[in-house]
Amino acid sequence: MSSSDIFIGETIGTAILILLGGGVCAAVTLKASKARNAGWLAITFGWGFAVLTAVYTSAPLSGAHLNPAVTVALAIKDNDWSNVPTYFAGQLLGAMIGAALVWVAYYGQFQAHLTDKEIVGGPGAQATAAKAVEAQEKGAGPVLGIFSTGPEIRNAVQNLLTEIIGTIVLVLAVLTQGLNDSGKGLGTLGALVTALVVVSIGLSLGGPTGYAINPARDLGPRIVHALLPLPNKGGSDWGYAWIPVVGPLIGGAIAAGIYNVAFA
Amino acid sequence: MSSSDIFIGETIGTAILILLGGGVCAAVTLKASKARNAGWLAITFGWGFAVLTAVYTSAPLSGAHLNPAVTVALAIKDNDWSNVPTYFAGQLLGAMIGAALVWVAYYGQFQAHLTDKEIVGGPGAQATAAKAVEAQEKGAGPVLGIFSTGPEIRNAVQNLLTEIIGTIVLVLAVLTQGLNDSGKGLGTLGALVTALVVVSIGLSLGGPTGYAINPARDLGPRIVHALLPLPNKGGSDWGYAWIPVVGPLIGGAIAAGIYNVAFA
Amino acid sequence: MSSSDIFIGETIGTAILILLGGGVCAAVTLKASKARNAGWLAITFGWGFAVLTAVYTSAPLSGAHLNPAVTVALAIKDNDWSNVPTYFAGQLLGAMIGAALVWVAYYGQFQAHLTDKEIVGGPGAQATAAKAVEAQEKGAGPVLGIFSTGPEIRNAVQNLLTEIIGTIVLVLAVLTQGLNDSGKGLGTLGALVTALVVVSIGLSLGGPTGYAINPARDLGPRIVHALLPLPNKGGSDWGYAWIPVVGPLIGGAIAAGIYNVAFA
Amino acid sequence: MSSSDIFIGETIGTAILILLGGGVCAAVTLKASKARNAGWLAITFGWGFAVLTAVYTSAPLSGAHLNPAVTVALAIKDNDWSNVPTYFAGQLLGAMIGAALVWVAYYGQFQAHLTDKEIVGGPGAQATAAKAVEAQEKGAGPVLGIFSTGPEIRNAVQNLLTEIIGTIVLVLAVLTQGLNDSGKGLGTLGALVTALVVVSIGLSLGGPTGYAINPARDLGPRIVHALLPLPNKGGSDWGYAWIPVVGPLIGGAIAAGIYNVAFA
Repeated sequence: MSSSDIFIGETIGTAILILLGGGVCAAVTLKASKARNAGWLAITFGWGFAVLTAVYTSAPLSGAHLNPAVTVALAIKDNDWSNVPTYFAGQLLGAMIGAALVWVAYYGQFQAHLTDKEIVGGPGAQATAAKAVEAQEKGAGPVLGIFSTGPEIRNAVQNLLTEIIGTIVLVLAVLTQGLNDSGKGLGTLGALVTALVVVSIGLSLGGPTGYAINPARDLGPRIVHALLPLPNKGGSDWGYAWIPVVGPLIGGAIAAGIYNVAFA
Repeated sequence: MSSSDIFIGETIGTAILILLGGGVCAAVTLKASKARNAGWLAITFGWGFAVLTAVYTSAPLSGAHLNPAVTVALAIKDNDWSNVPTYFAGQLLGAMIGAALVWVAYYGQFQAHLTDKEIVGGPGAQATAAKAVEAQEKGAGPVLGIFSTGPEIRNAVQNLLTEIIGTIVLVLAVLTQGLNDSGKGLGTLGALVTALVVVSIGLSLGGPTGYAINPARDLGPRIVHALLPLPNKGGSDWGYAWIPVVGPLIGGAIAAGIYNVAFA
Repeated sequence: MSSSDIFIGETIGTAILILLGGGVCAAVTLKASKARNAGWLAITFGWGFAVLTAVYTSAPLSGAHLNPAVTVALAIKDNDWSNVPTYFAGQLLGAMIGAALVWVAYYGQFQAHLTDKEIVGGPGAQATAAKAVEAQEKGAGPVLGIFSTGPEIRNAVQNLLTEIIGTIVLVLAVLTQGLNDSGKGLGTLGALVTALVVVSIGLSLGGPTGYAINPARDLGPRIVHALLPLPNKGGSDWGYAWIPVVGPLIGGAIAAGIYNVAFA
Repeated sequence: MSSSDIFIGETIGTAILILLGGGVCAAVTLKASKARNAGWLAITFGWGFAVLTAVYTSAPLSGAHLNPAVTVALAIKDNDWSNVPTYFAGQLLGAMIGAALVWVAYYGQFQAHLTDKEIVGGPGAQATAAKAVEAQEKGAGPVLGIFSTGPEIRNAVQNLLTEIIGTIVLVLAVLTQGLNDSGKGLGTLGALVTALVVVSIGLSLGGPTGYAINPARDLGPRIVHALLPLPNKGGSDWGYAWIPVVGPLIGGAIAAGIYNVAFA
């Protein structure tokens, strides 16, 4: 794979991942969406099939990492870090493009939701810290959740551990793929299994932190949330932002270690 | 593939697609249906598995485009427009047959729903424009939604963009299929992935417009809605009808362009 | 395949089909079940994965028809009726065994449900016709629905047409399987697609009649319902019993005809 | 396969199985989880995809039994008991590790749930038998359900029969796999089908007892429940513990007998 194929593949793939993953969060969260309140199953299947679509579409170009934790794990496993920066760059750019496309696709819904008096507490509401807390309780807060993850109970140690555990499961499944599918690339079945593993992690380990399990998936859209001209959007919760970056990277490294010891 | 195989395959396949896709909308919408109010997950999985069934059944005859946006994208990709009119004709005819079959399968439910005083505001209600607006709020309006899509917020630019974005995702996944499955035709796995991609688009991008992402899927049933002798059915919303035709065609063309530049 | 393999395979397969299919209806219907009121998606996925499990388990022995409508369609397609009686016998016996096993697995739930005063209107309630109507409204009626199908609106013509249409879709998908999977028997993917087609038919065409689409699936359990010593069980609705037998057989024959004309 | 591969594979695989399976129960049960009250479909798909992830990850090492009932059935089928103790040891250890990891991932949620006055009846509540009964009604009781199964109606004969029937279905599907997939190991499709069979059993036969269908899945986490320092956790219901151990073992043996008579 050439560097440009890797970069383009990761950019396209991660853009599709975040467009569809952020999209399902917008769909169930925002006012004037047909899918409003469709529930947790819709969110978890939505993210899982977002992975399927994104992996399937980008695998022929870049092998479809779409996740720095996967890239790091494969670099450790193969002891080859040469393409890591290219993968990272494509992943972050793609995640930002995807988040912006969610805003385009749901433009009217964002406007209607964030200017609804009952939701954000009056048209003159400012995005001050105090206002953000108040808006959180009134429903505007979840709009950040369309972009990035956040914990139900704020506890750095537990939140980090939950992200590490979830990522270990994801990356172990990705790494053992070659052992199940005779090393012939990711392929359709591999993409499908990876997607359902992500549904599984969402259903089973998503409760406490919203399962980032992917630094690009969380950081890229958080930057876009900070940049977009959304009315009454509240803060971007930068105090939490390091956990869904560091946790998945640690988890990916641990999974690679387990793989090298037990499976290689 | 012969022209008659293409025409027959597309007619059968699109008829099954709309029978099952429109069917799930009837199932969750109409009075006296066991599936009433089964929710957004039922609709999105219902449409996805409709694609699976339709693609699987028609692929041996016509390759299972079932969607003018796919036909246009493949014509651009292969620079071969010779069979396009045959595909289009089969798709439109099939979509109309499918919509009529939904009416047959749910005949009693349509009658019970549309003559229910609490739903349509009295047995003498006429399908005037004003009445259609009133009926919309009372529940008769959604009956058009069994046939065709409509936006939650009417904004031509956003609605068009949402349909374009959704169709790009769909068509990119269809076009990259050959790269994942070694070019051996659509096959079972290809049909399955396409189906789950459609579930994904529904869950993630269906909120604003109801994801037509297919001109035949919207136009054919809208014509049938206009023709059927449904009591109190209200108008067929022809003012919106161009968006789910033009948007998907643009999206398909853009996806073909992306494919030719990045993947070919 | 020997006659005894066919008979044993169809008996085991149809028993598993009805055990799991009837089981999900018991699970969502009966008092003191963890799955009570789990909804229409649970029922449709439950029946679909029942098909998967049953087909997968019995295919190596009998080819997994598990449905007289499929057996008739294959007999028409191949113009070979020699094994039809053996298939029918295994299917009916299996369906009865499966229905009896549902009763065993949910024994306490049936007892608790059918002797609950609020559900059946008093411990002395008799299964007279009038009482059955009253019980229907109070919740005992659905117990027949654990065994057999029934229409929401009783209209022989529509009910028959809905069953015919649903069965045509099912059998067309089964018949085209060989064209997608290079004729190498049913196989795992074929079983999976058939299962998801059944989910699709349930979601999309199950609203009016509960989608028997299989004479054995309806008749076998109805006989068992008539025989079992269930308290306050009400009648077995024999007046409707011919529709889910005749409709699917007609649908299977039509699908075979379409296949022979368009695909063969 | 070497003994150490078997032991490590079963330990890793069963740990992932219980981490994800117990995780989804924690996710839908506990306070301050994003998935709270996500419903029975979430639980059944969660367990099913837990099986997929666990089987997929451990199959290359140990063949992914992950269930003493499967190990016993294969030992009977092949008449080879030499590795049975190694499989059992890995399964029980893995199940205990998985249950402990659920506690780590949901640490804050367990604490918040079990010290909530409205849920457990006051911070000073003691885990006496009477208190456990009272807590059961107030919501603390279900916390045991995150670890182990329990019946809705306590009836040893029915509970045992339900577990036996469910396990027969599971193990028959596992044993017939080689017949569908040409004996080339479990493979991706085999893992997927096994997962969906488990979803099926959950939806259809899970209502009465919560479908242990696996002695290690129930016993390992029950031991961990007894050991963990959870506040107000109530008893571990050891009176019921033998049923989800003995029932599945009997079911596995019966399935192996059916296989040897009908399929071999």
